Amino acid sequence: MTSLREENTASLEPFFNPRSVAIIGASANPGKPSGRPLAALRKSGYKGKLFPVNPRYRELFGLQCYPSLKEVPGEVDLAIVAVPAAAVPAAVRDCVEKGVRAAIVITSGFAEVGPEGARRQAELVEIARQSGMRICGPNTMGILSSPSRLVANFAIPELPEKISIPDFLGFVTQSGGFGYGIYEMIQSYGIGFSHFVSSGNEADADFAEYLAYLVDDRHTQVIGGYMEGIKDGPGFIRVARSALAAGKPVLLIKTGRHAAAARAAASHTGALVGSDRVYDAVFRQHGVLRVESFHEMLAVLSVLTGGRLPRGNRVAIVATSGGAGVFLADKCAENELALARLAPATRAALTDLLPPFASVQNPADLTSAIMVNPALLLECSRIVARDPGVDTLIVCHGFTEENLRIARELNFFEEMASFVRGTEKPVINLLWGHQDSAQEAVRALTERRAPAVYEIEYGVKALAALVRYSAKRRSFLAGQAVSGSPPEPEQVAAEILRRYPAGAKLTERASKQVLAAYGIPVTREELAAGDAPAAAVAAAGRIGYPVALKIESPDLLHKTDAGGVKLNLCTPAEVEAAFREIMDNARRFNPAARIEGVLVQEMLPPGVEVIAGIGQDDIFGSTVLFGLGGVFVEALGDVALRVPPLTREDVLEMIGEIKGRRLLEGFRGLPPVDRQALAEIILKISRLALDFPQIAELDVNPLICSPQGIKAADALIILKKLDQPG
Amino acid sequence: MTSLREENTASLEPFFNPRSVAIIGASANPGKPSGRPLAALRKSGYKGKLFPVNPRYRELFGLQCYPSLKEVPGEVDLAIVAVPAAAVPAAVRDCVEKGVRAAIVITSGFAEVGPEGARRQAELVEIARQSGMRICGPNTMGILSSPSRLVANFAIPELPEKISIPDFLGFVTQSGGFGYGIYEMIQSYGIGFSHFVSSGNEADADFAEYLAYLVDDRHTQVIGGYMEGIKDGPGFIRVARSALAAGKPVLLIKTGRHAAAARAAASHTGALVGSDRVYDAVFRQHGVLRVESFHEMLAVLSVLTGGRLPRGNRVAIVATSGGAGVFLADKCAENELALARLAPATRAALTDLLPPFASVQNPADLTSAIMVNPALLLECSRIVARDPGVDTLIVCHGFTEENLRIARELNFFEEMASFVRGTEKPVINLLWGHQDSAQEAVRALTERRAPAVYEIEYGVKALAALVRYSAKRRSFLAGQAVSGSPPEPEQVAAEILRRYPAGAKLTERASKQVLAAYGIPVTREELAAGDAPAAAVAAAGRIGYPVALKIESPDLLHKTDAGGVKLNLCTPAEVEAAFREIMDNARRFNPAARIEGVLVQEMLPPGVEVIAGIGQDDIFGSTVLFGLGGVFVEALGDVALRVPPLTREDVLEMIGEIKGRRLLEGFRGLPPVDRQALAEIILKISRLALDFPQIAELDVNPLICSPQGIKAADALIILKKLDQPG
Repeated sequence: MTSLREENTASLEPFFNPRSVAIIGASANPGKPSGRPLAALRKSGYKGKLFPVNPRYRELFGLQCYPSLKEVPGEVDLAIVAVPAAAVPAAVRDCVEKGVRAAIVITSGFAEVGPEGARRQAELVEIARQSGMRICGPNTMGILSSPSRLVANFAIPELPEKISIPDFLGFVTQSGGFGYGIYEMIQSYGIGFSHFVSSGNEADADFAEYLAYLVDDRHTQVIGGYMEGIKDGPGFIRVARSALAAGKPVLLIKTGRHAAAARAAASHTGALVGSDRVYDAVFRQHGVLRVESFHEMLAVLSVLTGGRLPRGNRVAIVATSGGAGVFLADKCAENELALARLAPATRAALTDLLPPFASVQNPADLTSAIMVNPALLLECSRIVARDPGVDTLIVCHGFTEENLRIARELNFFEEMASFVRGTEKPVINLLWGHQDSAQEAVRALTERRAPAVYEIEYGVKALAALVRYSAKRRSFLAGQAVSGSPPEPEQVAAEILRRYPAGAKLTERASKQVLAAYGIPVTREELAAGDAPAAAVAAAGRIGYPVALKIESPDLLHKTDAGGVKLNLCTPAEVEAAFREIMDNARRFNPAARIEGVLVQEMLPPGVEVIAGIGQDDIFGSTVLFGLGGVFVEALGDVALRVPPLTREDVLEMIGEIKGRRLLEGFRGLPPVDRQALAEIILKISRLALDFPQIAELDVNPLICSPQGIKAADALIILKKLDQPG
Repeated sequence: MTSLREENTASLEPFFNPRSVAIIGASANPGKPSGRPLAALRKSGYKGKLFPVNPRYRELFGLQCYPSLKEVPGEVDLAIVAVPAAAVPAAVRDCVEKGVRAAIVITSGFAEVGPEGARRQAELVEIARQSGMRICGPNTMGILSSPSRLVANFAIPELPEKISIPDFLGFVTQSGGFGYGIYEMIQSYGIGFSHFVSSGNEADADFAEYLAYLVDDRHTQVIGGYMEGIKDGPGFIRVARSALAAGKPVLLIKTGRHAAAARAAASHTGALVGSDRVYDAVFRQHGVLRVESFHEMLAVLSVLTGGRLPRGNRVAIVATSGGAGVFLADKCAENELALARLAPATRAALTDLLPPFASVQNPADLTSAIMVNPALLLECSRIVARDPGVDTLIVCHGFTEENLRIARELNFFEEMASFVRGTEKPVINLLWGHQDSAQEAVRALTERRAPAVYEIEYGVKALAALVRYSAKRRSFLAGQAVSGSPPEPEQVAAEILRRYPAGAKLTERASKQVLAAYGIPVTREELAAGDAPAAAVAAAGRIGYPVALKIESPDLLHKTDAGGVKLNLCTPAEVEAAFREIMDNARRFNPAARIEGVLVQEMLPPGVEVIAGIGQDDIFGSTVLFGLGGVFVEALGDVALRVPPLTREDVLEMIGEIKGRRLLEGFRGLPPVDRQALAEIILKISRLALDFPQIAELDVNPLICSPQGIKAADALIILKKLDQPG
């Protein structure tokens, strides 16, 4: 599979697989950050050459210590820079001179501490740009790379002695401490890290680049990260897509949701695009799994160790307690997982095996009696897993000290793991019970690659994430890319847009002409120019009554406020009166307004009012949004967002995502909204956003979905200002 | 504090504190349920007399075994019945004959297995009713009571040898296996159970009664339970209130949410009252803490062991990583906890103590450097806890093997616990890191009654639950009981309701007269009787234009469907035409309809449309509901529910609970809705529901909130059918 930026991920190679490492500012004190990497590298058995550099020592840990980098013999691939902040720029320059290919600056005191630090950081950026040497940090905890036994890091003291599932997870964190917490926790369940990167202040190499490296890396099977924010949205999307192509799930904890939400005002569609919501949309769109906590991440990882993706969302539950079954059925429903209908043959086979008081429904309650008979539990699990109506099997059972002893004596963990490995569908063990016993059982299963989770509610969430990922990957591989739009609409739209300067707001009529050029249905309408109502009456005759009249002026875009809108006009007399009133109102409202005329427009039949449009995000650029009109958007912010280009599937997902979706399913006597037709319109809006990045905002509001079809009743396009990015 | 049902909780005493126990059907086989209780009772050191009863043995575990119960010498307080299902009724009758005060029937094969079992269970119910002997079960795992060292239970093999916080939690479970899972898990964190009851099929003693016992019990400090459903709603509410009075928090896992939700249709307000939503409303209303998983329950329990309630929702976070602080700030916002503003003195004191790269904001990032200096972490914690703007302190730090060693060497756990105990505010330690090290730290703190949680997101949820509980208890103690309604409205309303038979639907006019009697503002309106429009025109003149006309007929309650509504009539001519049209439509729609006339009604100014009303629940009886009108109710089911009587605070909580609440805060140029006036109306509806239990349904829809006031624009009362409960 192709990588994001071939040259960049190759340039990161010395961070992970250096033939030699110099530690600049190495210290003999293992309590100090400058003393720790050398100790860790030696303890972990790094095989390349190690060169401590510090004029204060002749020798460190039995290695020759060099007074300066230039005295180091031979080539240095990677430098760890641990000198005080003020000395860092000079040290990094020494690295460039020596021909070092990458430097990890663990020193803090840069952009995170104020203007002086920011200046120092800018120096590093400049050095990196000019030399091509890659820099990790500053203010980073460092990098760990298991395949090369490299612990170029001041927090992790050494590589673990043995790990059940080595090199499984590649991880990038924007918080050293928090990431270290995740590292410690996940590792303690036997899940190993291929690489662990603390990206620090990202003066040079950034989050998305490290992710791209992990996508290309042959060791890494799953990618994880802790993210606060990124600078390059499109770059991130490219990595997410190459990860999807490579079949490597990406799991992220992303914080900062609420700070962002607070900043987002809600008065118009543009402001609804709170940045965290765009991140969330991008994650959904490209199959990135957003998790909300350490333990949820662990649960998803454990489920992924099984190496099976479910074909669908139909779950069978085999439990040793009726209550646990009811509880899990609730959790499945909360996570949009369906309970499979067991086939009669499956139920008959279970009935034959089980005592009469067991329940052979789904959830199946095998009763606690089975806990002393693991072989029977396994046999029942095998029967249910074979049922063709089942996509995933959940086995829920408990562990006390006694159960654990029995399970060990009877080789239960090996047999369960062998059943799980031999089954094409995912099988997930959810375990409850005494903390020590249950956790030991979780580890015993996890290290044999049989997914097992102690926080059973997270196990269900993890399965739901897996189902979503699996569906996303299937549709990705099916390759539903959207073909480019034909050249004509682009030319017609370009013609119209060319008439407006940067920052301009188009009138309703011009905005709708752009939409119409892309084949988006709009109201029939004509502009009645001049001061006399006759043209309007004539237009109304051609369009057919009832009609609406709306003032058309680039200076009166809030038409209603200016008294410039009259609806439901049924006769020529009403049109004439309305025309005069609108003109009077408009002149009174803004005597200087340039008035192009009055737009005479068909009245649409009643229908479900939705909105659709284009917005802008600082990180990801143009976004496409869809929502229910009126109070839904205004009071609930009930919109779905995506970043173009969009597939038809993306759009159908957006439509299914809004809270008020029940309104689309046939409401108040209206037939259901034609979702395919609606999706087609949103796809066209997505193409418009791609074709014309100069559109800052498009607001189709309302788009009326009636049994007679879907049409834009009003629209507004705003162009980007000259200094606006994108 | 007064108990729920003095006589009942006293009658349960022999379940928990018997002077002697007979085990009927005791077996020598410890692998069988019938063999386990005796072994467990002996192992746990039960101090009363033990009488095995089984004709097959002369002796069991060194105790004399009796061939039948009547041969047992002296009194028997409690019997454990472990004979086969068919023999249970006779055995229970023997108990009555012997004067046994309470019996635990662990045998299964009753109502849970079908009609024959249900008949057997009905026999038990009858025996209990006639004799007054209390029965636990059948199909129960049994009862454990720590103070009397009683393990009358077939799953738990013995009492724990030592437990850090003995007798803390009293627990009742409707699922034996699931409850046992919770027992094992919670106990493994050093939190002890005073009593543990598996309530089985609840043939006699039920869930609410056991809860009532725990409220009265002097050992139990916190009450927990696993609940699938109860029969006696009002009884449950009485227990919840007595627990609130006694200051014993009640924590419940309640399942069955989604099955219930699926049953609830959404076409009208009555059907919106899905039963699980009523449970949820009752829990909120009476301070019951609903938790969603084992681990969430554990987190709340751990937080409760500290014995402190927060005064408000202002949280300060002291973390050893910036990322953890950001993460926690997000979680706080999600759970409606506010970040406290630290006082300048607090920040100055922190600045003096900390290195320059630490952040002394809230969240305070003490940096990972502090992890090797627990004394400094404690000192910072003390400073922040003293800040008067802080209601709760969260200390978030991580544990590796090395940190754990340092913490132990430096006596950190003792010192942290002593700081927590010496602080009047809650202090919660949220710990991350290696599973073994962090869990050991959690236990070390928890057993010293310093709240500590490993799943840090659950720690925040637990704190939020504590804040809600604390507020609920304060307002409960402030005693905001609602005074009864004055006699007049009751008489006027009774007069109107008397005119209608059971099951009747009142007309809009009659329904509004009932509302008006209770002081609920309704539209000005007059009934124009007869076939001629003159009366309607005259009424319109008195009411003032514009008016609405609505057909008034007990046979045409869906007025719009019958073409019986005309709005916004501005002139006498329009009224006249509308009158004729309505009459024609009505006669055509249903020629047999009894027509009382046409209701002439003022048109209300535009405003926010809400709905309010009364519904029915099978378990809890009348409910009061409030929601936003129109699409909010129809598409989102966005309503808040409570069970009357209501306090003003309950009602304000309901108003604040709906998703579309932003609409009430000033919208589309309207001023904010007067919440006090709205609350007053909902309180009056609550009184109406209490005064007239014969009202099955009241639907005030819409209730229009305009700057000119709040008025009911339409209303419908439906009376209960003769066979309807309540």
